[in-house]
Amino acid sequence: MSSRTVIRGGLVITASDEIHADVLIEDSRITALTTPGAQNWSADRTIDATGKYVIPGGVDAHTHMELPFGGTFASDTFETGTRAAAWGGTTTIVDFAVQSVGHTLREGLDTWHAKAEGNCAIDYAFHMIVSDVNQETLKEMDLLIEEGVTSFKQFMAYPGVFYSDDGQILRAMQRSAENGGLIMMHAENGIAIDVLVEQALARGETDPRYHGEVRKALLEAEATHRAIKLAQVAGAPLYVVHVSAMEAVAELARARDEGLNVFGETCPQYLFLSTDNLAEPGFEGAKYVCSTPLRPKEHQARLWRGLRTNDLQVVSTDHCPFCFTGQKELGRGDFSKIPNGLPGVENRMDLLHQAVVDGHISRRRWIEIACAAPARMFGLYPKKGTITPGADADVVIYDPHAEQVMSAETHHMNVDYSAYEGKRVTGRVETVLSRGELVIDQREYTGRAGHGVFTPRSTCQYLT
Amino acid sequence: MSSRTVIRGGLVITASDEIHADVLIEDSRITALTTPGAQNWSADRTIDATGKYVIPGGVDAHTHMELPFGGTFASDTFETGTRAAAWGGTTTIVDFAVQSVGHTLREGLDTWHAKAEGNCAIDYAFHMIVSDVNQETLKEMDLLIEEGVTSFKQFMAYPGVFYSDDGQILRAMQRSAENGGLIMMHAENGIAIDVLVEQALARGETDPRYHGEVRKALLEAEATHRAIKLAQVAGAPLYVVHVSAMEAVAELARARDEGLNVFGETCPQYLFLSTDNLAEPGFEGAKYVCSTPLRPKEHQARLWRGLRTNDLQVVSTDHCPFCFTGQKELGRGDFSKIPNGLPGVENRMDLLHQAVVDGHISRRRWIEIACAAPARMFGLYPKKGTITPGADADVVIYDPHAEQVMSAETHHMNVDYSAYEGKRVTGRVETVLSRGELVIDQREYTGRAGHGVFTPRSTCQYLT
Amino acid sequence: MSSRTVIRGGLVITASDEIHADVLIEDSRITALTTPGAQNWSADRTIDATGKYVIPGGVDAHTHMELPFGGTFASDTFETGTRAAAWGGTTTIVDFAVQSVGHTLREGLDTWHAKAEGNCAIDYAFHMIVSDVNQETLKEMDLLIEEGVTSFKQFMAYPGVFYSDDGQILRAMQRSAENGGLIMMHAENGIAIDVLVEQALARGETDPRYHGEVRKALLEAEATHRAIKLAQVAGAPLYVVHVSAMEAVAELARARDEGLNVFGETCPQYLFLSTDNLAEPGFEGAKYVCSTPLRPKEHQARLWRGLRTNDLQVVSTDHCPFCFTGQKELGRGDFSKIPNGLPGVENRMDLLHQAVVDGHISRRRWIEIACAAPARMFGLYPKKGTITPGADADVVIYDPHAEQVMSAETHHMNVDYSAYEGKRVTGRVETVLSRGELVIDQREYTGRAGHGVFTPRSTCQYLT
Amino acid sequence: MSSRTVIRGGLVITASDEIHADVLIEDSRITALTTPGAQNWSADRTIDATGKYVIPGGVDAHTHMELPFGGTFASDTFETGTRAAAWGGTTTIVDFAVQSVGHTLREGLDTWHAKAEGNCAIDYAFHMIVSDVNQETLKEMDLLIEEGVTSFKQFMAYPGVFYSDDGQILRAMQRSAENGGLIMMHAENGIAIDVLVEQALARGETDPRYHGEVRKALLEAEATHRAIKLAQVAGAPLYVVHVSAMEAVAELARARDEGLNVFGETCPQYLFLSTDNLAEPGFEGAKYVCSTPLRPKEHQARLWRGLRTNDLQVVSTDHCPFCFTGQKELGRGDFSKIPNGLPGVENRMDLLHQAVVDGHISRRRWIEIACAAPARMFGLYPKKGTITPGADADVVIYDPHAEQVMSAETHHMNVDYSAYEGKRVTGRVETVLSRGELVIDQREYTGRAGHGVFTPRSTCQYLT
Repeated sequence: MSSRTVIRGGLVITASDEIHADVLIEDSRITALTTPGAQNWSADRTIDATGKYVIPGGVDAHTHMELPFGGTFASDTFETGTRAAAWGGTTTIVDFAVQSVGHTLREGLDTWHAKAEGNCAIDYAFHMIVSDVNQETLKEMDLLIEEGVTSFKQFMAYPGVFYSDDGQILRAMQRSAENGGLIMMHAENGIAIDVLVEQALARGETDPRYHGEVRKALLEAEATHRAIKLAQVAGAPLYVVHVSAMEAVAELARARDEGLNVFGETCPQYLFLSTDNLAEPGFEGAKYVCSTPLRPKEHQARLWRGLRTNDLQVVSTDHCPFCFTGQKELGRGDFSKIPNGLPGVENRMDLLHQAVVDGHISRRRWIEIACAAPARMFGLYPKKGTITPGADADVVIYDPHAEQVMSAETHHMNVDYSAYEGKRVTGRVETVLSRGELVIDQREYTGRAGHGVFTPRSTCQYLT
Repeated sequence: MSSRTVIRGGLVITASDEIHADVLIEDSRITALTTPGAQNWSADRTIDATGKYVIPGGVDAHTHMELPFGGTFASDTFETGTRAAAWGGTTTIVDFAVQSVGHTLREGLDTWHAKAEGNCAIDYAFHMIVSDVNQETLKEMDLLIEEGVTSFKQFMAYPGVFYSDDGQILRAMQRSAENGGLIMMHAENGIAIDVLVEQALARGETDPRYHGEVRKALLEAEATHRAIKLAQVAGAPLYVVHVSAMEAVAELARARDEGLNVFGETCPQYLFLSTDNLAEPGFEGAKYVCSTPLRPKEHQARLWRGLRTNDLQVVSTDHCPFCFTGQKELGRGDFSKIPNGLPGVENRMDLLHQAVVDGHISRRRWIEIACAAPARMFGLYPKKGTITPGADADVVIYDPHAEQVMSAETHHMNVDYSAYEGKRVTGRVETVLSRGELVIDQREYTGRAGHGVFTPRSTCQYLT
Repeated sequence: MSSRTVIRGGLVITASDEIHADVLIEDSRITALTTPGAQNWSADRTIDATGKYVIPGGVDAHTHMELPFGGTFASDTFETGTRAAAWGGTTTIVDFAVQSVGHTLREGLDTWHAKAEGNCAIDYAFHMIVSDVNQETLKEMDLLIEEGVTSFKQFMAYPGVFYSDDGQILRAMQRSAENGGLIMMHAENGIAIDVLVEQALARGETDPRYHGEVRKALLEAEATHRAIKLAQVAGAPLYVVHVSAMEAVAELARARDEGLNVFGETCPQYLFLSTDNLAEPGFEGAKYVCSTPLRPKEHQARLWRGLRTNDLQVVSTDHCPFCFTGQKELGRGDFSKIPNGLPGVENRMDLLHQAVVDGHISRRRWIEIACAAPARMFGLYPKKGTITPGADADVVIYDPHAEQVMSAETHHMNVDYSAYEGKRVTGRVETVLSRGELVIDQREYTGRAGHGVFTPRSTCQYLT
Repeated sequence: MSSRTVIRGGLVITASDEIHADVLIEDSRITALTTPGAQNWSADRTIDATGKYVIPGGVDAHTHMELPFGGTFASDTFETGTRAAAWGGTTTIVDFAVQSVGHTLREGLDTWHAKAEGNCAIDYAFHMIVSDVNQETLKEMDLLIEEGVTSFKQFMAYPGVFYSDDGQILRAMQRSAENGGLIMMHAENGIAIDVLVEQALARGETDPRYHGEVRKALLEAEATHRAIKLAQVAGAPLYVVHVSAMEAVAELARARDEGLNVFGETCPQYLFLSTDNLAEPGFEGAKYVCSTPLRPKEHQARLWRGLRTNDLQVVSTDHCPFCFTGQKELGRGDFSKIPNGLPGVENRMDLLHQAVVDGHISRRRWIEIACAAPARMFGLYPKKGTITPGADADVVIYDPHAEQVMSAETHHMNVDYSAYEGKRVTGRVETVLSRGELVIDQREYTGRAGHGVFTPRSTCQYLT
């Protein structure tokens, strides 16, 4: 027996349209859109969205729940993290399963399946971090794609941990050119950066702000350029994660002008925070330590421009929270020991709506970079990322006029600080459906761990 | 009493989505989209679109019906031209009303209203050609915008006829920065070109192919660059019409990388034809004389790339037919007297579908450049250009597998030759609805002159 | 009977070398360079240059003595202006003869010959300003080249006065592509600027600083780009005068990267002054009114960079002095009536030496941009611009350690203010020879009106 | 007692001037230049250069005499190689001393001193190849600079042999930023190339032409870009050796436009040969195997343009000959085993003169890229590379009208083939002086092993 929900009277916003329409949901899927009031559907549940936005649930394509890093673990579990995501209007995350050097992709993926299964409030999918490219892992890539894990992350940073050399990168890209996978790149010249880190520490420059100084914008741009050229040699597409430097955006823009299949993601922290935060007094700057690092404020304008000109396509969070107390503190006296990462999965949709209010992007572009583009990029569209007949009923009722103040006091992420403490924004999630079920109901959590399921993905949809 | 049409079983393709869905039309509007078979609507008419595409009617943003040019008139009237458009799957045209020097915009617009009213098979709108910028015409621009004529074309070519100098262009752009109008530019350095024309004729170079040689790509690129800079000074957006030179595309790409509101249109003739056609023996080349001129073949790849990278946003036809016999022949012995223009309003949707078949663009991009983007660019969206509840029921049932051969023998445009004579393409329009009425019914014309109405437009929707 | 001068013990600096050498001058020419003390020449005159620089006399390729402009005349005659030039270490000027509309080039050139002949302290040559391109003037260009007037200036600014349209420019460039002449361009979009001037005055913006605001950097860059493209179409080289905007430098750099024969000149005022000067209180800003205008300070770094990267090749003065009292004052209440121009012929060598002291350029580059490059650019090399056997003995003994303060009190130009009043610089001209004769002898003027002669020039030497 | 030589009546060509002048040489140095016939010097030897060019001896800044490579040695010793250089009009070479991994720079340099000392016909200097960057070798760099070895080569190619990783490169660059050294870079991404080599061999692609296919132009450009960025981070200058790919030239041009101290060298083989040679039938292609590899012909135009626009500054030979028989043959059946290198030290001056004849460059530019620029780049100017009082009397009398055919039959290099076999060129060395001594006297060898001495160098002179 089917359940029917009707959302009436809202402004339905997708990446392409803004229309006043009623939305019919049957069971887990959207089955009809109509002109307002055109159909007098009987329904089990009717949501009045008058004066509100009806938007697709957010797709956060870059999270790290429970990631082991620097001897500790990211503080959000799949349970706490996905619950917080739902609070923030995100209904799908794509997290990163990790292959450790010397182990198979399979092992890594199984481990992450075990962490997530039965614990998630919303749907989830996986990318695979490939730390060790060899004949076996290249073959495993093909298998994973069949299982719906269609994207593979490599690191040009972190030598000795996640680092791949240019030969390993080239091999993986060649494979992805054949099997349809998408290589995601952490583009920083880690070999050069590690020299600068060592020199900085030797000079006694141990405060968090030096984290931003040694991880130079030019070395992000260099790695971005190199990854692009390797992808060009391999004939493969490329997705560059967490772009923060304006010089890196310029490399992406140049490659895209040449017609290359090169894509770029940035994150709210690069759009709203800067090296000013890293330089906050005491050890406060540690809260803002992530890699790529925050940049001087003037980089923000170039990122916004890149989002408008579509040289950047996606805004994800790189959500990877570590508590200030006990975790970030590991790096007191040595910035290189501060666990890298910021909380944010709950804040993304609101911050980007604030960007609409501030005039940086249009409403449709908001939905595109936060919902539709990540869904398309990672093979989830139109199941996720839009509101159309046949799509999963992942829908958010968003109040564009409500005001809120971001704070660790009120957020739902399992971390003892907010990167945006005290920031006042306009707009707030009111109600969230995941596959037709209410997860947030007028700002009350009605979801449950285990509702969310693993969602296999097809390959990148920007490549057809 | 309302009439209901249901289109069942097709693949609905818009600029953003490809979904299997049923479409409900009530009277002149689309009122619902549903998953296939989800609703058992009663309908006056049911169209079975199984195995077919259901696409928005094409929007051709650049036509010249009955245009006076070089002592003659474009051979399609609004009646014959819009009927041919419908045959080709286009359900809206935006034609150009012409202000003559010394006359008001009002007079020009009234003249064109008179030509079109009661004669069109499909809906139509107007741009205004501004030949004479002065204090009066600047004020008239504001009025026209209120009447739904929101875009204004200027010419950097044709001195003594349509030509505006840089001061007139700057003034019009400044006005458009205030009133929301969009300046459309014919970007060729006509002052320099006229020198080259005179010199070529003096050397006895009178054949049609010299038309292509004197109107140099560099002089299109130069004018494009200049228009961009003037728009930048004015703080106004800019739309460059009929871009044909790869150097001009590069100028647009550069401007767009800088985040400027600069847009570019190309036409099927530049994508499928070349200077090889202009050089056809006898006087055959005259059939391909238009301005900007056809370019050497190597420019085509750059245009396709521009369409993929969104440095070009729109494909229009610049439909401006002159019969070979009696019209094109006016330029025998002097290429500068050949009326400038090509027929094409009927061929655009098919040629661009062929580009999908050939792998130049995706299906969604086909609909975007031919329907959605022109509608958005010129303030017709989502009334025109998409399939969504509330939109006008301008819908085409397109058979992607049918084959056809283009020919003057079979086309419906009032012109004695086809620019694509003998070209075999895959895909064909089967049925066309305009505001819910059948205009083409399974390849039979069922429309009528006068069905089409003037459609006022809002301002450019890429600027919000 | 010949006279012999020996300059001993100095550091001879040319564009390419810095060597300790003795210089032998016989009559008007340099006849030998030797290692110091190597030859025990008998000489009529021995100059001890120990601890000093021995440099070629400066070549100022852009002066306007007695130029009629805006109803008045530049305040330096050929007599006062060339004397001041000599004081400043410049031994050759290339001034601009003016064709008035409706008159021949011949008439203009004859007029300027009459002004200069018998009056100059140093050698002089002429460029020709072409205000009226037609069949006759095109033919006259050939004749003038035979007479040693090998460069022709056109204006994209000043409509109604010096302005040429793009067709006239193209024709002149085509002619220069054949006859070896070099087109010099005043690159500002004067048609657009005049609109902005009119609008500014209408808004009551009449102060000198508005001169800088209406003559926008983008409109200089636009014209620069256009001139480059017209030259490319014509297959001709191009020399852009008085480049002041960083965006214009970028256009030149781009063209030069493409291998085009495009050259750029800047002037000391753009390197050392800025819109801050134009905005000086009272009517003081009028002293700094010239076109192209002074730019905001941030443009200076780009100009210095252009000089280092050889995207700019020449520094001339555009010396065109108007007294503050009685001349600049014509524009009180209407900046557009302020005569355009600055004094500077006496200051150039010193200001550029200061740039060496400040680290902007090397010593050899100083001599290159001030002596050798202008001489090569305008067909005077190696007669002028270097120190080598066979060259004219135009030599300056320069004291690199002397300090001076620039001031109208002490300068020798016939103008009642200095654009650099109070500026302290290191380095000073001590002694100047022109064709072997002492013009300045240890800071005493020993020259005479009439020593300087008209110097016919060959064509541009960068084009072999 | 001193010896005096006078060279009379020739056209003296330097990087900056072309003058008819007599040249006086006393002992080993040039002591005077005079106007022809001006001085009636008594002389021990008078050379009549009427109708000839008098040019500075060539400076070849990139040779590898006796280089151990791939289990064999370059076939020219310092004796045979420098003799051949003299025959070709080159009077100074800068060869590469090699540090082996695990050994000190000192050991490497001493070894090369021992090879060269007493054996050279012309003067020589050394660069140092740094294979192993560590705290000790960084300190040794300072010492070597004091000894006149002021440039240090690193390799981004040849992993396991000469390869330095980005951290080692950064450290060496940082050191050079302090001590004034110049880092020379072999810019190819060897890590990625080795993957492609392995894959090609696995596919059975073993012929010499695959050498050109695997060492992709994009991977040269990538490494060039990376080296530039690392130099920018270090604040150091950079000299890229043997640039062959047009994409690499573009990277250099971009960096130079930004004002960076980045320099580029190309070699005659890239200007005159192409992948067509690598693809010659049989195993003939092996004769043309060098790294960077020869490129398709269309790259040549970009290299010539780079030489004209000064985006490339130097043409060296990378002379590294291996006999076809017995050496090149080591790579039959496996292109990766073919010793990398071409003979050329004798051909450079003639090939570049041919480029003058062909119109690629001017005469002065010929001398600049072959004599003056390498001398300045590597701290030998004006002792070497020009004709001026005080300079070493390294002078070539060059007959610009003589014709010759290049051939292994007639050349003097110790290698059994010529890369230019059968090529007819105009221009030939007639007489060569090295520090005032005749080495080639009217095409007779009059020199001797041991005349040439080690020549310490100051630091790069483009950086003042």
